Amino acid sequence: MKIEWDMINMAREVAIIGIGCTSFGEFWDRSFRDIFVEAGVAAIEDAGVQGEEIDELFVGNMSAGRFIEQEHIASLIADYAGLASLHVPSTRVEAACASGGLAIRMGVLAIASGHADIVVVSGVEKMTDVSTQDATDMLTAAADREWEGATGATFPGLYAMIAKRHIHEYGTTREQLASVAVKNHHNATMNPKAQFHSEITVDAVLRSAMIADPLRMLDCSPITDGSAAVVLAPADLARKYTDTPIAIIASAQASDTIALHDRADITTLAATTAAASVAHKMAKTTPDDIDFVEVHDCFTIGEICAIEDLGFFPKGTGGKVTEEGITAIDGDLPVNPSGGLKGCGHPVGATGIKQAVEIVQQLRGEAGKRQVAGEIGMAHNVGGSGGTAVVHILSR
Amino acid sequence: MKIEWDMINMAREVAIIGIGCTSFGEFWDRSFRDIFVEAGVAAIEDAGVQGEEIDELFVGNMSAGRFIEQEHIASLIADYAGLASLHVPSTRVEAACASGGLAIRMGVLAIASGHADIVVVSGVEKMTDVSTQDATDMLTAAADREWEGATGATFPGLYAMIAKRHIHEYGTTREQLASVAVKNHHNATMNPKAQFHSEITVDAVLRSAMIADPLRMLDCSPITDGSAAVVLAPADLARKYTDTPIAIIASAQASDTIALHDRADITTLAATTAAASVAHKMAKTTPDDIDFVEVHDCFTIGEICAIEDLGFFPKGTGGKVTEEGITAIDGDLPVNPSGGLKGCGHPVGATGIKQAVEIVQQLRGEAGKRQVAGEIGMAHNVGGSGGTAVVHILSR
Repeated sequence: MKIEWDMINMAREVAIIGIGCTSFGEFWDRSFRDIFVEAGVAAIEDAGVQGEEIDELFVGNMSAGRFIEQEHIASLIADYAGLASLHVPSTRVEAACASGGLAIRMGVLAIASGHADIVVVSGVEKMTDVSTQDATDMLTAAADREWEGATGATFPGLYAMIAKRHIHEYGTTREQLASVAVKNHHNATMNPKAQFHSEITVDAVLRSAMIADPLRMLDCSPITDGSAAVVLAPADLARKYTDTPIAIIASAQASDTIALHDRADITTLAATTAAASVAHKMAKTTPDDIDFVEVHDCFTIGEICAIEDLGFFPKGTGGKVTEEGITAIDGDLPVNPSGGLKGCGHPVGATGIKQAVEIVQQLRGEAGKRQVAGEIGMAHNVGGSGGTAVVHILSR
Repeated sequence: MKIEWDMINMAREVAIIGIGCTSFGEFWDRSFRDIFVEAGVAAIEDAGVQGEEIDELFVGNMSAGRFIEQEHIASLIADYAGLASLHVPSTRVEAACASGGLAIRMGVLAIASGHADIVVVSGVEKMTDVSTQDATDMLTAAADREWEGATGATFPGLYAMIAKRHIHEYGTTREQLASVAVKNHHNATMNPKAQFHSEITVDAVLRSAMIADPLRMLDCSPITDGSAAVVLAPADLARKYTDTPIAIIASAQASDTIALHDRADITTLAATTAAASVAHKMAKTTPDDIDFVEVHDCFTIGEICAIEDLGFFPKGTGGKVTEEGITAIDGDLPVNPSGGLKGCGHPVGATGIKQAVEIVQQLRGEAGKRQVAGEIGMAHNVGGSGGTAVVHILSR
């Protein structure tokens, strides 16, 4: 990118004026259509906007084509949201598990460009209509199918390689990995939308079934149905709709090699580092300014890498600080107060939006038992094993 | 949309400074990766931009997840374009067969927003790695899977219903439908990139195999591999790269119900009408100002509806004017001088970009034997049976 990063300025500032989210879980009695309508309607009602005020829709979704054999879901969503008769432009964006984060960034671009004022951004995934085995195969499509998938690598397998290397390089322990899952399950017990409401122990993680050495079942985020939505507006119009607009002070996205084997160091997700660097330059912040963060803990090692790559802790210390409670909900830097992907579940296209919903709830002071203090929150959403990363910084 | 349509102004004007396109056809010896690299490199070389100047990538693709079991292709493309080490943001957008047109619009938004200067927009589809039967099923995912696909409707079936109704309402004849295919095959004989280089006759269309009454094989666009790309820049920087920048004077997108049965009139694609209306207001043009147009002739009836819905001809007269040669390459309004989807082939994600490539070639005066006169061209790209439509107006 030739952009001078310290020169990045959004042509118009953007704020979140409404949020909505379904419960996350296994919904065998509800369809893809049911869940995106629930989240979208909740967000629109929360924002208090009328249908005819909506200028544009974006939806993040990884793989409806394979999970439910339905592409063209942007049209479907405009239709079922009752906006087809208004001919509202509706666009699906996809970068595997980062689809939700990307969708928010597209909404920001649409408003900043002057083409749109009120934009509804949603994320949705219905993953439980296929077998777990099929879902695992479908998720492998986020990796390099020809060089990783074809050799039998699955996502647990790829992240297991990252974990093995992190253990080798930095002495990260099995117990430290487990402490990520224990923390996030604890936080999820306080989140009514989460898939899991059960405390777990380090011992339970270590005794759970081996998936891909060293990762065990309780190191892995689950397969989940869910949808989340936010309503965006230009900052200068936001107070017309709400007394508590939450400003998007940075929206940054970066790419990296899709395959792990092409990277110099697999324990660092360079797309995360690059996106965070751009985000801080946009927001004029440093990691010290961030009060809490939602990171992409698709596997426990993912959170450890993320809190290092985002610059919160030196490389190699992510496991240690987690074990010490520094990232606990009452610690110095609460990480994944929502429960994260591990505790909330991970409907892949919805996750990036759910992260933003959580940060808005926290900054509004509406997070209930899991409320943390602070004025600035960050969301970090990853596609695949780091081929894409998106970082948003939100401020009240 | 509450936008005052006559108030739409792009914050920054955008121009196309480079184009690239593979041949379209059945490429059993080349992969998805090969073809997007070919088109992208051609566009970048044509623009004369360096890798480090590229701020953002967008890619239109309908269904790589199903055709080649690969999602997350935005990361794959950044990687194989050699841009992963620069961490260039890369986003896939999808609205079935309108994915390419959408991708151009996202590029326009990214530049207009001030976030990006040089943006590469590509479209790609590799459709021949599966059987024709499987491809037909995969394409049905662009329709309403639960209400159309589940009842056995295919895309030829849906467009056949539109054709039946058009015949019933307006007296459109079987020969008039055929005349669209005859014209587009003729134009394709002059396009070296086209899948088909054979003239056909009305009689040949009428004798070809019945697919879905009244549509026969030669009424249908084929299944095709291909990729196309354009490089976008802010208008005020464009002349740094080229002496012949082509301005994007309108970029408009609209949605409609995904299913045909929810529309008041299936012979009018209301998304087309809405997108064209917005586009003309952005460009301050009327249909009379358009010198030639590339329209979405996925089936012959599609072109007839398009030239009516875009306001070029009164409703019901599209077949007649085609038969009379008014839309021929030497007629009053050349329609699909490239050969259209029927003659060029229809790699679904690439088609919207290929339309723009054609218009740029025409406006630069580089269209060879198929050169038409004019200074303003329009591209019209449709997703599904009209759930999405995108209209671009380009000017030299």
